[in-house]
Amino acid sequence: MNSYLEMDRTSLENELNEVKLLLEEKIKQNIKLDMSRGKPGKEQLLLSSGLLTSVSEADQCFDGSIDARNYGVLAGLPSARALFADILDVSPSQVFVGGNASLQLMYDLISKAYTHGLLHSPAPWAMRGTVRFLCPSPGYDRHFKISQSFGMELIPVSMTPLGPDMDTVEQWIKDPSVLGMWCCPKYSNPDGIIYSNETIKRIASLHPAAPDFTVIWDNAYCVHEFDGDYVPFPDILSLCAENGNRDMVYEFTSTSKITFPGAGISCMASSEENIDYMTKLISVQIISYDKLNQLRHVLFLKDKAHVLELMKKHAEVLRPHFELVESILESEIKPLEIAHWTNPKGGYFISLYAMHGTAKRTLELCAKAGVTMTGAGATYPYGIDPFDSNIRIAPSLPSLEELRQATEILCLCLRHSALEQLLQTRM
Amino acid sequence: MNSYLEMDRTSLENELNEVKLLLEEKIKQNIKLDMSRGKPGKEQLLLSSGLLTSVSEADQCFDGSIDARNYGVLAGLPSARALFADILDVSPSQVFVGGNASLQLMYDLISKAYTHGLLHSPAPWAMRGTVRFLCPSPGYDRHFKISQSFGMELIPVSMTPLGPDMDTVEQWIKDPSVLGMWCCPKYSNPDGIIYSNETIKRIASLHPAAPDFTVIWDNAYCVHEFDGDYVPFPDILSLCAENGNRDMVYEFTSTSKITFPGAGISCMASSEENIDYMTKLISVQIISYDKLNQLRHVLFLKDKAHVLELMKKHAEVLRPHFELVESILESEIKPLEIAHWTNPKGGYFISLYAMHGTAKRTLELCAKAGVTMTGAGATYPYGIDPFDSNIRIAPSLPSLEELRQATEILCLCLRHSALEQLLQTRM
Repeated sequence: MNSYLEMDRTSLENELNEVKLLLEEKIKQNIKLDMSRGKPGKEQLLLSSGLLTSVSEADQCFDGSIDARNYGVLAGLPSARALFADILDVSPSQVFVGGNASLQLMYDLISKAYTHGLLHSPAPWAMRGTVRFLCPSPGYDRHFKISQSFGMELIPVSMTPLGPDMDTVEQWIKDPSVLGMWCCPKYSNPDGIIYSNETIKRIASLHPAAPDFTVIWDNAYCVHEFDGDYVPFPDILSLCAENGNRDMVYEFTSTSKITFPGAGISCMASSEENIDYMTKLISVQIISYDKLNQLRHVLFLKDKAHVLELMKKHAEVLRPHFELVESILESEIKPLEIAHWTNPKGGYFISLYAMHGTAKRTLELCAKAGVTMTGAGATYPYGIDPFDSNIRIAPSLPSLEELRQATEILCLCLRHSALEQLLQTRM
Repeated sequence: MNSYLEMDRTSLENELNEVKLLLEEKIKQNIKLDMSRGKPGKEQLLLSSGLLTSVSEADQCFDGSIDARNYGVLAGLPSARALFADILDVSPSQVFVGGNASLQLMYDLISKAYTHGLLHSPAPWAMRGTVRFLCPSPGYDRHFKISQSFGMELIPVSMTPLGPDMDTVEQWIKDPSVLGMWCCPKYSNPDGIIYSNETIKRIASLHPAAPDFTVIWDNAYCVHEFDGDYVPFPDILSLCAENGNRDMVYEFTSTSKITFPGAGISCMASSEENIDYMTKLISVQIISYDKLNQLRHVLFLKDKAHVLELMKKHAEVLRPHFELVESILESEIKPLEIAHWTNPKGGYFISLYAMHGTAKRTLELCAKAGVTMTGAGATYPYGIDPFDSNIRIAPSLPSLEELRQATEILCLCLRHSALEQLLQTRM
């Protein structure tokens, strides 16, 4: 195979015809495959079957003197706060344990900022006119959708291999209408980037014009290495405190990709003052989250060391999925010079950059062939990828055989759209 | 014992001295008792131990083809929607199953009304200037706190033995700033009143000035008879639809007082249009609620008939608690003519009306003697009982022996404050 970039018009046309035939064959197979979301697969779910029986008798339902079945203890069971504190390297008093979704805690934080204001807000965000939020892109579509849902103006910030472009961030935060920033600092969604220490330090020492500027530190993949050992990561809460920014950051994580995606537990970590403030607001919303599920997790996961052991087992399952996709891309696409992609060592995604202007068309073709991918542009604010290039590949859910089929189809579609594009630009 | 109302000043003084001595003795005993919240007691929690093992193996984690452990299916497992539909006598498509707290669903409804608006809102409530909300009183303090937290103006509406005073309600809804009404229609908190069919019909056929006026129908005690058989109750959704008010009501219930208070499942029921609208808004907040706990509940509770059997067992535990409090009040307080109270057949509370102007003082004395009760006034908007009279008694949590002690202390405190009051007014 030769680079498409060096082919003449006739070769491109021949190639396109060939690809079309191959793709038509695939369409005939009536395949239905989903690589759209970072959903753990069946084998991974089986790793946590012990969670189903970790609390199976009435007298196991206690955390000290607290009955996990009954109402109360809004900030979470002490043992669950301690577990997350261990994982995130913070103190239990900085941890609020919620329900099955950290996304809900993030949404509620933003929602309460709008209706009630945060600890240092001069007024609720609903009263602040235009609210701007920094969106390192590509990023997590659900983050951006929360911002969009509240009518914020989403400000794209480029991602670099070291994290968000901090020159841009430092420029924007001088604007008092910029009230926060989404971050997925370790194995970023979708690029799999680990923010560098320098980037993290610059974030912790920001001097934003808005007194309630809030960094949402979604540490979703904090222990999610699938290739190699656990990578220690700075504690953003301490770093912010050291830089006079105690209350500037809320960190989030969950067990969604440690135990069961839909039935795990989540947490929010921040300064004690922030946690106290939010706990008071949340006390109007709910008496307490599901402490029985918190207890199940505490008994099953035990501590960080034990969590890391479990994550090694996830890694054994996940790594072949990533390796398969990467090896097919390597052999099928690399020589053609029509795309490049990330080779992450943790997280849930491979981020592929197709030839500019071809991502939408590629995914349209994939859909026709029965392969569902995350919508093109979804990883950018407002769903608009300025280069129409980024494609998020989520290899975890399909079986290896399905994944092979889906990736081969993706490769054909990438070739198809690139060939169309090249033919059009050379007319 | 004679009525305090007929005693002369000297007798009142002697009586007060005697009560003071009795109370001092109690204080010396260093009692710590809690009758503040409608928390199920230990025996009740044991009734649902089967829930701990109803899903204990990986291959039980499925509802049809849906894996309850994984992400997705935001509106809830089909089987869980069917279970609540059975309990509430509505259709599964009208049911949205949430997490462990119906309060959270109610809060989120109001919160989204403020930030996004409801289906028929001309604008989000945050943009509507003064928002007024009808609060049948006495009522559930947590309802009123949600309204208060969003800065609504709380409009008290008197409770009658048939439900809220509908003449007042029908007057108020002509005001376009009145955007809703809290209702606890069966075994109302705290009075234990069942809204009459006539009241329910009048609610269902309201013609409010505000197009997005919303009845919050908190059917928390829908199957919660502790004395006598299950009392069928009209389906408010059908009644509203019949009266051209399809989208006017959101009904809520949960298993908090069927299985585990802190680890149950909850639901919201409304027109399909409302459920679709809310599901779209909630899809930004959370991917899905804990379906595994939904499945545990479906397998443990089975259907309404089976739920009613379980509620009979709760009744066996609860009834003696209510009977004990009522019998002590009957013998200790009734002859004195200083208070009257409800004798409910379901729900979680006895609502006591002390001599006007003495509720606060009574509970202050209770606290000194180690008995925690719901704060005086808590059952009224802004925590202000216009008569300083209502005291909410929650007899479920303490053991019978503790309950006897606590009720005896309450009786002494009622006598103490009544005597003080009578002596003052006769000066």
